[in-house]
Amino acid sequence: MIPIISIVGKSDSGKTTFLEKLLPELVRRGYRVATVKHDVHGFEVDREGKDSWRHKQAGAHTTVISSPQKVALIRDVEKDLTLAELREKLIQDVDLIVSEGFKKDVQPKIEIFRKEKHKELLCTKEDNLVAIVSDKEFDVGVPCFSLDDAKGVADFMEKKFLKAKKEEGITLKVDGKTVSLKPFIRDFLSGSIKGMVGSLKGCEKPKKIEIKIDD
Amino acid sequence: MIPIISIVGKSDSGKTTFLEKLLPELVRRGYRVATVKHDVHGFEVDREGKDSWRHKQAGAHTTVISSPQKVALIRDVEKDLTLAELREKLIQDVDLIVSEGFKKDVQPKIEIFRKEKHKELLCTKEDNLVAIVSDKEFDVGVPCFSLDDAKGVADFMEKKFLKAKKEEGITLKVDGKTVSLKPFIRDFLSGSIKGMVGSLKGCEKPKKIEIKIDD
Repeated sequence: MIPIISIVGKSDSGKTTFLEKLLPELVRRGYRVATVKHDVHGFEVDREGKDSWRHKQAGAHTTVISSPQKVALIRDVEKDLTLAELREKLIQDVDLIVSEGFKKDVQPKIEIFRKEKHKELLCTKEDNLVAIVSDKEFDVGVPCFSLDDAKGVADFMEKKFLKAKKEEGITLKVDGKTVSLKPFIRDFLSGSIKGMVGSLKGCEKPKKIEIKIDD
Repeated sequence: MIPIISIVGKSDSGKTTFLEKLLPELVRRGYRVATVKHDVHGFEVDREGKDSWRHKQAGAHTTVISSPQKVALIRDVEKDLTLAELREKLIQDVDLIVSEGFKKDVQPKIEIFRKEKHKELLCTKEDNLVAIVSDKEFDVGVPCFSLDDAKGVADFMEKKFLKAKKEEGITLKVDGKTVSLKPFIRDFLSGSIKGMVGSLKGCEKPKKIEIKIDD
């Protein structure tokens, strides 16, 4: 599963500005990053009169515009999706998801704090705060980085989230819900499927297996 | 797998206009539809200076904007994606994908033709033409519908693509490639996995199983 980290902070703390330093640092290290931003006010990404806009007006649930360089998608949702739901429904082909905001989500958070703007931190360790980026030192049990230290934060993210991601092995979803598996079941299921699939012609050494069964 | 149908036709044949009749008819029947439009010239769906635009400029491969009503995504691609690739990478939670254009794709096609605009059809049965929507009768071995007959086309699509979609049962991808399975293997693999998963607590009657193994 793609790891998710949220960059949170009170209004005007400089979240986007910090992301503009952090993203190039992650890209330079070879990671593909997806960013997620919440927009409570709704947004217009499509233009009136364009074909894709006409599709959406005519009742399309999802509209995709495809070009050789980039692809855009707009889809209806019934409620605010969590970061995990966005990952599941939309995001592929990246190593890491970084959200700006989403302070109420359960994902690990890095808080941006500037002392001239605010008095207190937004998050505590109970909110899954894992680091602080600030011009002030905090002693709250998580590492602190300076506002310019994109490199230090990238090192931290790499160590904590990107190198650990290989360990999961197998995920199982039944009727849309992820089923948590005990280590024995995990090994049994994974081993049995790898054995079966590995016996198929051309699949002798499967590294990554994806199976969907619809009854 | 979500069925895909392309609405094709020469320039100015009225593809978007026909889709504006067809989409409400499909929605009225309870189907969720995704539309796909190709844009060779590239497009701008995001606005300069917005946070999501700044994320993309700073190197994000994918940027998502989430609101309680809709979600938008923009991502980089290395080449024009086929409709099947777009389905795989982006589109979920719909019953049907309808593209406007994509005449070179392998998916089944319905051609829109207006006699005052063009002399000859764009597609033949070899291009996977499955129906024609026109103000002229054609005898090319596929059904013809009038330009106003969104209901007839929806009946046809429903019968040919939407009611047939349940039969697939199991899909297997190994290292990113879909592996075609013979009926015996299909039943064996599907039956074994259903047996194993069904023995887990809370998963007694699995209808839909998704497994991902990463080695």
